[in-house]
Amino acid sequence: LLHDDVIDEGQTRRGAATVNRLWGNESAVLLGDFVLSQVFRLVADFEPVVAKVIAETAARVCEGELRQVAQKQNWRLTEAQYLSIIREKSAAFFSGCCHLGALLSGAVQPQVEALADYGLHAGVAFQITDDLLDVAGDERATGKTAGSDLGASKLTLAVIHLIGTVDAAARERVYELLESPRDCGDELKELLAGHGSLQYARDRALDYVRDAEAALERVPASAARDALVETARFIVNRTA
Amino acid sequence: LLHDDVIDEGQTRRGAATVNRLWGNESAVLLGDFVLSQVFRLVADFEPVVAKVIAETAARVCEGELRQVAQKQNWRLTEAQYLSIIREKSAAFFSGCCHLGALLSGAVQPQVEALADYGLHAGVAFQITDDLLDVAGDERATGKTAGSDLGASKLTLAVIHLIGTVDAAARERVYELLESPRDCGDELKELLAGHGSLQYARDRALDYVRDAEAALERVPASAARDALVETARFIVNRTA
Repeated sequence: LLHDDVIDEGQTRRGAATVNRLWGNESAVLLGDFVLSQVFRLVADFEPVVAKVIAETAARVCEGELRQVAQKQNWRLTEAQYLSIIREKSAAFFSGCCHLGALLSGAVQPQVEALADYGLHAGVAFQITDDLLDVAGDERATGKTAGSDLGASKLTLAVIHLIGTVDAAARERVYELLESPRDCGDELKELLAGHGSLQYARDRALDYVRDAEAALERVPASAARDALVETARFIVNRTA
Repeated sequence: LLHDDVIDEGQTRRGAATVNRLWGNESAVLLGDFVLSQVFRLVADFEPVVAKVIAETAARVCEGELRQVAQKQNWRLTEAQYLSIIREKSAAFFSGCCHLGALLSGAVQPQVEALADYGLHAGVAFQITDDLLDVAGDERATGKTAGSDLGASKLTLAVIHLIGTVDAAARERVYELLESPRDCGDELKELLAGHGSLQYARDRALDYVRDAEAALERVPASAARDALVETARFIVNRTA
């Protein structure tokens, strides 16, 4: 998160000023490196597989973020490319967390895999929803700077849908709005709502919640499993 | 190094353009995180102590860098504070490398400690010399942007010596030069040379080389030990 706010030039996180805003990029970069190093120091006492899952997850997240940076201002990004990027940069993180929880609780391998799959699907649902909140959410409720994805020239699923739905003339207007994101928030939001793009993204997020729930059918029913179902539903229904 | 160049806004590294210059800060931050994560993935198969030394070293380096950032533009930084910062941000890295080499070659504990000490002293000598090259070195030979420490408002040992040596009026002029580092390179270099400050820093670096050699006396004589003595001497005599 420390590095994410440097990369996105985020000014607000959970309603508070970010480290990069308060103390500059260099402190935020170094503090992130410090925390990452401390994590690896702490996990060195666990089974090697634990450190390996954490390190692999961190590497995948970085790869996904790097691919997103490489695709900035590519207004021709497809839905498949978008999904593949968020699978790495966000969903791999959720998946890694579920994977570790399963490993450390001594689950058998098929259940470890089921829970890693659950995390992957829930993570995709999370990121689609997060991107939606960025464009359509209430800045006060989310505690984050609204429209920062657009400001950073990152396409989101709703915008990809809009570009694929409107006619050529309207598409040119969308490109114009994307090129001047600071002033275009409201007009873009109306276009997204009017062409069903917000609903499309919400529906896709719900598809991934269903996939997440399906993965959980491979582990025995329990109160813990119910809580994971609840969590996946909360992820797409949250407003902040 | 990827993150270091972001922090220092370094444009040139080993004679080539830096990643931050070519592809921006965000790519350099993410690529650094990716490499760090891959390192921890690779070391997960070693003894836990190996990952622990690497992680502790990385955390110390970050702490030292953070302390340096906190002391930026503090023209009253003492020699002791400077040494304590470079011990963490640079020498801890050399020490960690020597520590690991000793561990992995199966050395007994007193020798592991002797080699870690050697690395610490050699690392301090390295950083004093590196700071000297930044102010007095040849940019073409070093392959790095000259004067970037001054540009980043970081005090070096030679400048600390100069400030402590000159009279009050000259000291004010030094502060002025430090405040406008882009244009002051040559005048400051002449002051440093004229007041023996470059020589002072060189002599202190040589002291640390002697400490490094003394630490090596605690390991048996061998061709490898001779090579380490050579290395420490090379560190302070290099011109790039």
